[in-house]
Amino acid sequence: MDMGASRAFRATPAATPSSLAGRYAAVRALSATLADPLSDAEATIQSMPDASPAKWHLAHTTWFWETFLLRDHRAGYRTYDERFAYLFNSYYECEGPRHARPSRGMLARPALDEVLAWRDHVDRAMAPLLDRAELAPLIELGLAHEQQHQELLLTDIKHAFFQNPLEPQVWQGLTCRGFGFEGLEAQPPRSWLEHPGGVVRIGHDGPGFGFDNEGPAHDVLLQPFALAAELVTNAEWEAFIADGGYTTPSLWLSDGWAWVQAEGVEAPLYWRELQEFSHMGMVPRDGAAPVTHISYYEADAFAQWAGARLPTEFEWEALAQDADPAAGNQLDPEFQGWLLPNGESGSLFGDCWQWTRSAYLPYPRFRPAAGAVGEYNGKFMSGQFVLRGASCATPRGHSRATYRNFFYPHQRWQFTGLRLARDL
Amino acid sequence: MDMGASRAFRATPAATPSSLAGRYAAVRALSATLADPLSDAEATIQSMPDASPAKWHLAHTTWFWETFLLRDHRAGYRTYDERFAYLFNSYYECEGPRHARPSRGMLARPALDEVLAWRDHVDRAMAPLLDRAELAPLIELGLAHEQQHQELLLTDIKHAFFQNPLEPQVWQGLTCRGFGFEGLEAQPPRSWLEHPGGVVRIGHDGPGFGFDNEGPAHDVLLQPFALAAELVTNAEWEAFIADGGYTTPSLWLSDGWAWVQAEGVEAPLYWRELQEFSHMGMVPRDGAAPVTHISYYEADAFAQWAGARLPTEFEWEALAQDADPAAGNQLDPEFQGWLLPNGESGSLFGDCWQWTRSAYLPYPRFRPAAGAVGEYNGKFMSGQFVLRGASCATPRGHSRATYRNFFYPHQRWQFTGLRLARDL
Amino acid sequence: MDMGASRAFRATPAATPSSLAGRYAAVRALSATLADPLSDAEATIQSMPDASPAKWHLAHTTWFWETFLLRDHRAGYRTYDERFAYLFNSYYECEGPRHARPSRGMLARPALDEVLAWRDHVDRAMAPLLDRAELAPLIELGLAHEQQHQELLLTDIKHAFFQNPLEPQVWQGLTCRGFGFEGLEAQPPRSWLEHPGGVVRIGHDGPGFGFDNEGPAHDVLLQPFALAAELVTNAEWEAFIADGGYTTPSLWLSDGWAWVQAEGVEAPLYWRELQEFSHMGMVPRDGAAPVTHISYYEADAFAQWAGARLPTEFEWEALAQDADPAAGNQLDPEFQGWLLPNGESGSLFGDCWQWTRSAYLPYPRFRPAAGAVGEYNGKFMSGQFVLRGASCATPRGHSRATYRNFFYPHQRWQFTGLRLARDL
Amino acid sequence: MDMGASRAFRATPAATPSSLAGRYAAVRALSATLADPLSDAEATIQSMPDASPAKWHLAHTTWFWETFLLRDHRAGYRTYDERFAYLFNSYYECEGPRHARPSRGMLARPALDEVLAWRDHVDRAMAPLLDRAELAPLIELGLAHEQQHQELLLTDIKHAFFQNPLEPQVWQGLTCRGFGFEGLEAQPPRSWLEHPGGVVRIGHDGPGFGFDNEGPAHDVLLQPFALAAELVTNAEWEAFIADGGYTTPSLWLSDGWAWVQAEGVEAPLYWRELQEFSHMGMVPRDGAAPVTHISYYEADAFAQWAGARLPTEFEWEALAQDADPAAGNQLDPEFQGWLLPNGESGSLFGDCWQWTRSAYLPYPRFRPAAGAVGEYNGKFMSGQFVLRGASCATPRGHSRATYRNFFYPHQRWQFTGLRLARDL
Repeated sequence: MDMGASRAFRATPAATPSSLAGRYAAVRALSATLADPLSDAEATIQSMPDASPAKWHLAHTTWFWETFLLRDHRAGYRTYDERFAYLFNSYYECEGPRHARPSRGMLARPALDEVLAWRDHVDRAMAPLLDRAELAPLIELGLAHEQQHQELLLTDIKHAFFQNPLEPQVWQGLTCRGFGFEGLEAQPPRSWLEHPGGVVRIGHDGPGFGFDNEGPAHDVLLQPFALAAELVTNAEWEAFIADGGYTTPSLWLSDGWAWVQAEGVEAPLYWRELQEFSHMGMVPRDGAAPVTHISYYEADAFAQWAGARLPTEFEWEALAQDADPAAGNQLDPEFQGWLLPNGESGSLFGDCWQWTRSAYLPYPRFRPAAGAVGEYNGKFMSGQFVLRGASCATPRGHSRATYRNFFYPHQRWQFTGLRLARDL
Repeated sequence: MDMGASRAFRATPAATPSSLAGRYAAVRALSATLADPLSDAEATIQSMPDASPAKWHLAHTTWFWETFLLRDHRAGYRTYDERFAYLFNSYYECEGPRHARPSRGMLARPALDEVLAWRDHVDRAMAPLLDRAELAPLIELGLAHEQQHQELLLTDIKHAFFQNPLEPQVWQGLTCRGFGFEGLEAQPPRSWLEHPGGVVRIGHDGPGFGFDNEGPAHDVLLQPFALAAELVTNAEWEAFIADGGYTTPSLWLSDGWAWVQAEGVEAPLYWRELQEFSHMGMVPRDGAAPVTHISYYEADAFAQWAGARLPTEFEWEALAQDADPAAGNQLDPEFQGWLLPNGESGSLFGDCWQWTRSAYLPYPRFRPAAGAVGEYNGKFMSGQFVLRGASCATPRGHSRATYRNFFYPHQRWQFTGLRLARDL
Repeated sequence: MDMGASRAFRATPAATPSSLAGRYAAVRALSATLADPLSDAEATIQSMPDASPAKWHLAHTTWFWETFLLRDHRAGYRTYDERFAYLFNSYYECEGPRHARPSRGMLARPALDEVLAWRDHVDRAMAPLLDRAELAPLIELGLAHEQQHQELLLTDIKHAFFQNPLEPQVWQGLTCRGFGFEGLEAQPPRSWLEHPGGVVRIGHDGPGFGFDNEGPAHDVLLQPFALAAELVTNAEWEAFIADGGYTTPSLWLSDGWAWVQAEGVEAPLYWRELQEFSHMGMVPRDGAAPVTHISYYEADAFAQWAGARLPTEFEWEALAQDADPAAGNQLDPEFQGWLLPNGESGSLFGDCWQWTRSAYLPYPRFRPAAGAVGEYNGKFMSGQFVLRGASCATPRGHSRATYRNFFYPHQRWQFTGLRLARDL
Repeated sequence: MDMGASRAFRATPAATPSSLAGRYAAVRALSATLADPLSDAEATIQSMPDASPAKWHLAHTTWFWETFLLRDHRAGYRTYDERFAYLFNSYYECEGPRHARPSRGMLARPALDEVLAWRDHVDRAMAPLLDRAELAPLIELGLAHEQQHQELLLTDIKHAFFQNPLEPQVWQGLTCRGFGFEGLEAQPPRSWLEHPGGVVRIGHDGPGFGFDNEGPAHDVLLQPFALAAELVTNAEWEAFIADGGYTTPSLWLSDGWAWVQAEGVEAPLYWRELQEFSHMGMVPRDGAAPVTHISYYEADAFAQWAGARLPTEFEWEALAQDADPAAGNQLDPEFQGWLLPNGESGSLFGDCWQWTRSAYLPYPRFRPAAGAVGEYNGKFMSGQFVLRGASCATPRGHSRATYRNFFYPHQRWQFTGLRLARDL
C-alpha cells in the first residue's frame, strides 16, 4: 500500500515579480503550494499548543487581509463568513475574543476546500486595493505576515507528521543529494569573520519594508569580536554528545539544565539514531550539514563546551549588513533542494535561524503602531531570545540584516541552529 | 455558505439477520454508516484523551478481527499492514506496545479511505470463518465489541463537534418531533415499580452471548425496593438547578463537590441556556425528555435532593429480567428518530444508560479468560461505577438485562442518565 | 551530635478505664503522649495534602469537642479562640469555610504549646458533660473520632519524617526484637480459615458504639470461601518482586498499572534495599513480618500473582465475628513493642489493615445522621475501597468486626496490608 | 490570648565596623538577629518552592563558610556534620547532589537551636582565617552572599506568615509613623532626572567587592533620557487599578496578560482592600509610599498606562554612579523604621528594588570564576530581568551602583517596585 504516492512536489513559476500586485499573487500562491500535498485531515490536526494546523495558517493569513485591508479599506466589502473572525484571529486582543489556541486542532470545519475557497474570494476582492499607494505599507505588512506563516506552516506540519509512528512524508520525489554521516573527524578547520568593534548603526531605517521591532535605527557600541564563518554542524554536535554534553550540568544554564532533566533531552528534536525526521520522512543525517532544531539552552551549552559563546544580535547584524539576505539555502517556490540545512552556501543567511544571546527587547525609542496592527511585535518582548538570519524554510526575500526573529529558549521545532562567536 | 448540506442521513436496510454471517455483515455495515457523514478530517480529530477519533474506532474494530480471528484462525492470512497493530491496539498489553491514547488524534494517516479499504479487505477475508462453529463465540465477542465502539464513535464525535464554535451538525434532515421546553411544573406524577426482595439470580448464564464480566450467575439477597417507572427528566433537572442543586455541598459526595468546584460545573455537559448540543447541532431542549450527559456525582446529588437514591445494579437487573432488552429508544440502522433521549417508550432499556450505586467489581468466582481476550473487562474493576440499560446510541440488540456498562464517576460524555430508587 | 537523645518513650498507665469519664481522660492523654516526642517544628510540618501536621490533629480533635459538645451542650461556654474553627475544621461544610487542606503545614502559629493549652482548657470544660447520659452517644463518637486521628497522626508523622534525608527517629529506646531478613524460602505453609457461605448477618446493630457507615445490619448471601490464616509477609512480597511482579502488566488493574508507571513504583512505600523506614528510623526488614504500606493496586496484583484474590468485606466480617477485636498487635498506651507489624499473634485484628475487594458504598437503607455530624462518613462513598481489621497503630479497643476503614486505591501511607482469599 | 507578645524587636549595636573580622561578626550577628523572633516551627516552614525556610537560610550561609573557607583553607578542620552538605547546598552542581528545593520545608531537624549551634561553631573556626589577606576576596564574597540571604530570609518569612489566616506578626513594638491613605489626588508633580546620553562606563572595576556579574566594566552608548526622581507610589497604583489597569489587555505584555488571567491578579501581592501585609501583620496602606511587591509584568503595564517606560539597567546605573548607595531606606541592625517602603529619602537606593527593562545577560567578555564559586551568577542568565537599587530589606552597605539583582518577570514576593523613565 502506498500512502501518498501521488504527492510529488508541484513546481510553480519562479521569477520574483516586482510589482506589489505580482508579489501579492506570488506570496498567496506559495501558501497554497505548501499546503498542496496535505489532505484535509493533515491540514486540520494540531500537534501541540505552540503549533497550529496548516489549514489554520491558510485561514488566519486570509483573515488578516480581510480584516485589515478589505474591511477597513474597501467600501461595501461584505465579510465572507462572520464566524471566521472568532476562529482565525490569532492573538489580537483589539479584534475581540478568539478561539482558544490549544483547540485549533478541533476545527474540522470549515474544511480545507472551504478555506481555499475563502482564499480565492479574498484574493479577488483584494485586486482593486493592490494599486493604491497609500495602502502599500499595510500590504507589505500583510505579505511579510503571510511569509512568516508559511515558515510556521512548514515547521508545524513537520512536527505534526513526526507524531505519527508511520513517519509519513509531506513530499516525495524531491531530488536528494547523497547523504551520509561521515563521523566525528569530519569537522573542517573553522574560519572566523572578524569585526573591529566600535559604533555600529543597528536597525531598520528603510528603504523597503521592515517590522516595527526592527527600529528605530540607532547606534550601538561594540567591542572587537569574530563570528564563525560556518554554522555548527551535525558532526560537531555528535562530538558534543559523545563528550557528555547532555549530562554535564556545568555546561548549562540553570533553566536549561532543569529543562534537559524534565524532558529527558538527549539530542536535537528530530534525531533518531543516525537519522533525522524531515518533510520527506526519516532520512540519513548529514554530518557536514548544520545542526538544527535545537533550543537556546542547547545552543548555549554547546558554545560553552566549545570554549566560545553565542553572538549578540548586534554583532550578527554588524557583519550581515554587507551580506546578501536573499542568498543561501532558503525557500523558493521551485523547492530547489529539500527542506533541510545543507551548509553549502557559506552565506550568513539561510539553512537555519541562529540563536543570539540577546533577549528580545525593544530598541531605544521603540513605539508600537496604533491599533490592532500594533499588537504585532511589542507585546512579546519578555522571556524570548532573538534569532537572526533565515532558514531553509524562510521564503527567499523575506529576511534581511535587521530582521529579528524570536522564540522562547526551550522551543526548538523551528529550524534553529547556531553560529559561534568569540571576543577579539 | 452551507457546510455539510449534502449530509442527510443515508438509510440502510433494517431487518436484523439471524445468521452469524448476516449479523456480521449488518454490524460491520452499521459502523461504516455511522461514519458516512464524516469527512476525513472529522474522522481524524480527537477532543480529549477519553475519546477517540471516529477513524480510530473503525480501524480498531478491524484490528480486532484481524488479530483474534484472521491471524489466529485463518491459515496463511497475511496482515494487511504490519504497522497498524501498533496504531490501533487499544489497551491489550499482551498484544504488545501501542500508540499513546492521547495521541490518537495525530493519525492523519492512514486516511479514512485507507481505513475503509482495510475494512473491506478484512471483511472479505473473514467470510470463510463465519461458518465455523468453533469460532462462533469469538465472533460473537467481536460483534459485541464492534457494537460497543459504534456507541463510542457516536459519543466521541459528538464531543469533538462540540469543541467547534461553529456548532456543526453530524446529520441533517432527520425528522424531528416538536421540541419544546415546558417548564418546571411539567413533571408527571411518578410511578414506581416494586420488588419484594429476597434471593435473586443475578448474572449471565446463557443461552446467547454475554461478556465475561456478566458472570458467573449467582444468587444475591435483596431487600424490598422500588424503581421509578420513568427516567429523571430535563424538567426535573431544571428544578434541581433552580433549587441550588449545584451550589449546595451537603447534596454531594466529597469527590463530587471537589469536581463541581474544580470544573465549574453548573449543568449537564451539553446544556447551553435552553438548548442542548446534539448530533444535529444545537436544538431546543425537551423538558419531558430524560436528562442525559450527567456524571455519577450529579446523579447521586440529584437523588439526594429528590429524597431518593440510586438503585444497585442488582436491583435494576432483578426488575429488568422480564423486560424486552430490544425495546425502547435505541440505535437502529434506519435511525428511527434522532440521537437524543425522548422518554416515550416506558421501557427499562433505551434513552440513556442509568447510573447505579454499584461499583464495578467482579462477581463471585469471576475469572478472566486466558490470553489477550481476557484483558477485556477484568482489569478495569477499580474506581468505576456500573450503568445498566441501554441508550439511544446503543445498537439495538446489543444490551440485555445482565449487561454491565461502566464509567468513572466524573465522566459524562456518554448518554448517561438516572432512574431513582427507594426502599420499601 | 545527637538529635533527639532524650526522646525515649514515656510510658503512661495501662489499665483501660470503664467509665466514660475515665475513657475520655485516657483517650485524650494518649493523643498528647503520641505527640510528646515531637518538637514544635516537627508537629507543624505537612508532607503532602493527604497528610496533616501532628499539631493539626491535636487541634482538630479538640475543635470537635468544643464544637459538637461544648458549644452545643454546655450553656455559657465561650469559644477559646474564634479563629480556630476556621483553621481546624477538617471538612464539615455545614460548619463553614475552612483553611485549605494543602496549606495546613503553614500554621506555625498557634504553636504546639498553645494547642496543648487549648486541649487542657477544653478537657476541663468537658468534665461536667461526661456524666450526662444523653450526651454519651456523641461523646462515644468523639472518642472514636479522636482515636482515628491518633492513628493518622502516627502515619502522617512517619511520612513527614521520611522526607528528611537525616532519617530521623520519632522514638528511641524501644525494645526491639531481633530483626532479620530470612530470605525467600522463609514462607511457612499457609493455612486457611474456611467458611461454608450462606446468609450472614453483616453490620453493626449494637450494643456499643459503631459508626453510621457500619449499619444498618442486614443479611448478605455468601458463597463458600476461605481466608488465609496469616497476612502476606515481607518475604512473600520479596518473591513477588523477584518474579517480576512490578513489571508484569497482566497482573495489574489498568489504573494500577498506570499508577506503577507514572510513579515508578518498585516496592512498598518505605522499603529501601533490605531496610524499611519506621518511627524508629531505618530498621532491618523482617521477612516473617506482614508486608505493609502497600496500595490496593499492589495488593490486588499480588493476589493475582499468588493465584488467589482479595476477600470481600463481608467475607472478612463473617469470619471475624467470633474473633477478639482487641487482640493482636495494636496500639497500647504502653507501646508494648514498636510500630511495625510482627505477625506474631495469629489474630484477624492487628498488624495492618487489610484491603478488601469491596468498594466503600452504603449498606442497604443507610441514612447519614442529620447535621454536621452526618457528614462523617457518607459523603466519602465513591472511589475508595474498604479495609478491615486494625493495625499496629490503631488504638486497642477502637476497632471491631463491623468496622469499615476506607482509602483510595493508590494510597499507602497507612499501615495497609493484605490477607488472601479463595473460593471453595 | 496573645501569641507572640514578647517578640518586640531586640536592637543590636549599630556602628559599621571597618575591619573584615568586624564586618564578619556584624553580618553574622544580623542573620541571627533577623531570625530572633522566630520559633523553631516558624523557622522551618516553606511557603512555596521559590522561598526557603528561615532556618535553611541560616544553615545554607553557614554551609558556604564551612565549604569554601574552612574546608578548603583551614588545615585539619573537621566538618561539623557530614550530612548538612546534602541538606544545605543550594544549587552548586559541582558540590554534589542536594536536597530538593521544594522539600526544604520538611527539615524539622536539625532544629533551629542546632543550626544556631552550628553557626557558633563555624564562627569560632572562622576566626583565624579572617586576617589572611589572600582569603579576603572569598570572605567578601561570603559576606555579600550572606547579606543576600538576609534579604531573602525577610521576604520568605513574610510570604510564609501571609499564608496563615491568623495574619501573624514577625515583629511587634516597632515605632510606626502615622499611616494613612490619602486618595488618588495625592500624587505630587513628578520631577525628572535628566541624562544627556553618550558613552557611559558601565560595570564594576573596583576598588571594593563586586559580584562577577557586575563586570567586566565596559562602555555603553546611551541616548538622552530621564528617570523619575521618585518611585511610583501606592496612590498612583490605585489610580492605575481604578482606570482598569488589570483588565485592559493592550497595556500588558502577552506573557503578562496570560499570567494576570491564570492567577487572577488584581493588585500587588500583599494588598487587601486598604491594607497591606507586612512583617508587623496587616497595616493601613500609605498612599504616598512607593508601591512594592509587583511583578515585572505589572511594572511594565503601569509604565505603558502612564505613557512612560521602564529604564534600562544602563540608564539607571549612569544616573546612580554619583549617588550614595548607602543612603535611603535600607536595612540597619537597629531597624530604624519598619520593613516597608516610605519614599522619604529621595535616594535612588532603598525602599524597593526597581525593575529595569534589561534582561539579565552577561556583559561583554564576562567569564564565570572557576570551580563551584563560578556557579554563582552566570548560570541564571536566561529568562530573568535586572533590578537595580536596594530595598528596605537590603542590608545597608550591600548594594552599589553596579549591583545587578535579577528575578523572573512573574515573581513579586521580593520588595520590587518601579521608577519610570522616558526618552529626551
